[in-house]
Formats: sequence, structure tokens, C-alpha cells
Amino acid sequence: MATIAIDQDLVTLVNVFIVNPEQQQRLAAVLAEATTTVMNRFPGYVSANIHRSLDGTRVVNYAQWRRVEDFEAMVRDPIAQQHMRSASKLATSFEPHLYEVVFTDQAADAYAP
Amino acid sequence: MATIAIDQDLVTLVNVFIVNPEQQQRLAAVLAEATTTVMNRFPGYVSANIHRSLDGTRVVNYAQWRRVEDFEAMVRDPIAQQHMRSASKLATSFEPHLYEVVFTDQAADAYAP
Repeated sequence: MATIAIDQDLVTLVNVFIVNPEQQQRLAAVLAEATTTVMNRFPGYVSANIHRSLDGTRVVNYAQWRRVEDFEAMVRDPIAQQHMRSASKLATSFEPHLYEVVFTDQAADAYAP
Repeated sequence: MATIAIDQDLVTLVNVFIVNPEQQQRLAAVLAEATTTVMNRFPGYVSANIHRSLDGTRVVNYAQWRRVEDFEAMVRDPIAQQHMRSASKLATSFEPHLYEVVFTDQAADAYAP
């Protein structure tokens, strides 16, 4: 369970992959496996959250890292690069950007049981 | 504060806006204002979370709705459409898709103080 809030000391990666719908499930599985076998062992890793679009054409990784430098160190790692290549091969394109949260709002009863 | 988890009864909108960096701050402000004055009064609204990319070229709204039908009813509303037009005019392009969360992982110490 990840938390989105403006007062957290972290940076957010939003990586949008465009996929053929036949590859969507496989791509989500590859990203999940890369997370649990490689990415989450890097210093500064906070969370990864894989989403599939209901129309079948997108996979989004919403991931949190402690600092920009932590994310960049992971991206330079040869083993991590190998897993990122496996994921990118399943996608038509992908677009990773780093973000900061600037505004949040929620319904009063958003998480009531 | 929003929560990302696979067991929540909701649908996630990820809307990626491409902007000229000079418009990024204004777009984020317009989306925040639209959320608090219009969007969050609709049935089924759960949360909205505005992110700005560190490179200045993107704004992402990560929003949660109870059901697809709730989101679609908002999109059809004339007042909501007026606010969405104001936001889209500040962007080069925007790409809204609805998602479900299929995988989450987090560091053991992700939210320790």
C-alpha cells in the first residue's frame, strides 16, 4: 500500500507504457517481477504500483523513490537495465518522468469501510 | 492523502498533460481549483492528486473514482466540461485513461518516521 501526499520526502516516477492489448498482461507481470527481484533492493526504493488501463492499451508504473539520485543510480545499474529492456521490448513506447506531488484532495468518506 | 492498493473498490484515472514549462504551474493550479470547486462534489469522487514533472514538461492528475460510471457522469456534465476545457487549453496535449491497480510493492521502511 503506497500513500500519495505532498509532505512526503520522496520523488515519484510515472512511467506510461503504450502496449498492444495482447501484451498488456505480460508487460504488467514483467514489471512486477522486475520490482520484486531487482528494483526493490536498491537504496532509496520506496514503492512500485503497477496499473493496467481498462482499454488494454496502457500500463503505468507509479513508483516512489527517496531521492532523484537513488532513481538515477538504479537506472545506471546493468542488471536493472536488463530488466528495463525486457519490459520495453513488450511495449510500443514508454515515457518515464519524475514528479513531485503539488496538490491532493480526497472525499471525506474516501476510505470509510 | 490517497492510498494505492489492489483491494480498493475504485477505478483510477491517470491523465498526463504535456505542457510548455511556462504553463506548468498555471495548469497545476487550474486542475487543483477544478478539483475543489467542481470535481469533488460529484458522486463517486474519491481523490485527486496533482503532480508536476521535475523537467517542467508534464502535469499528471492521478485521480480515484468509485466506479467507471461515476467518472463518465462527471465527464458528461457541462460545468465539469467547462473546467476541463480551461485545463486543456493550457496543455499541448493530454491523455486520460482509466486503470485498475494490479500489483503493489513497498519497502519495509517506506513510511517509517
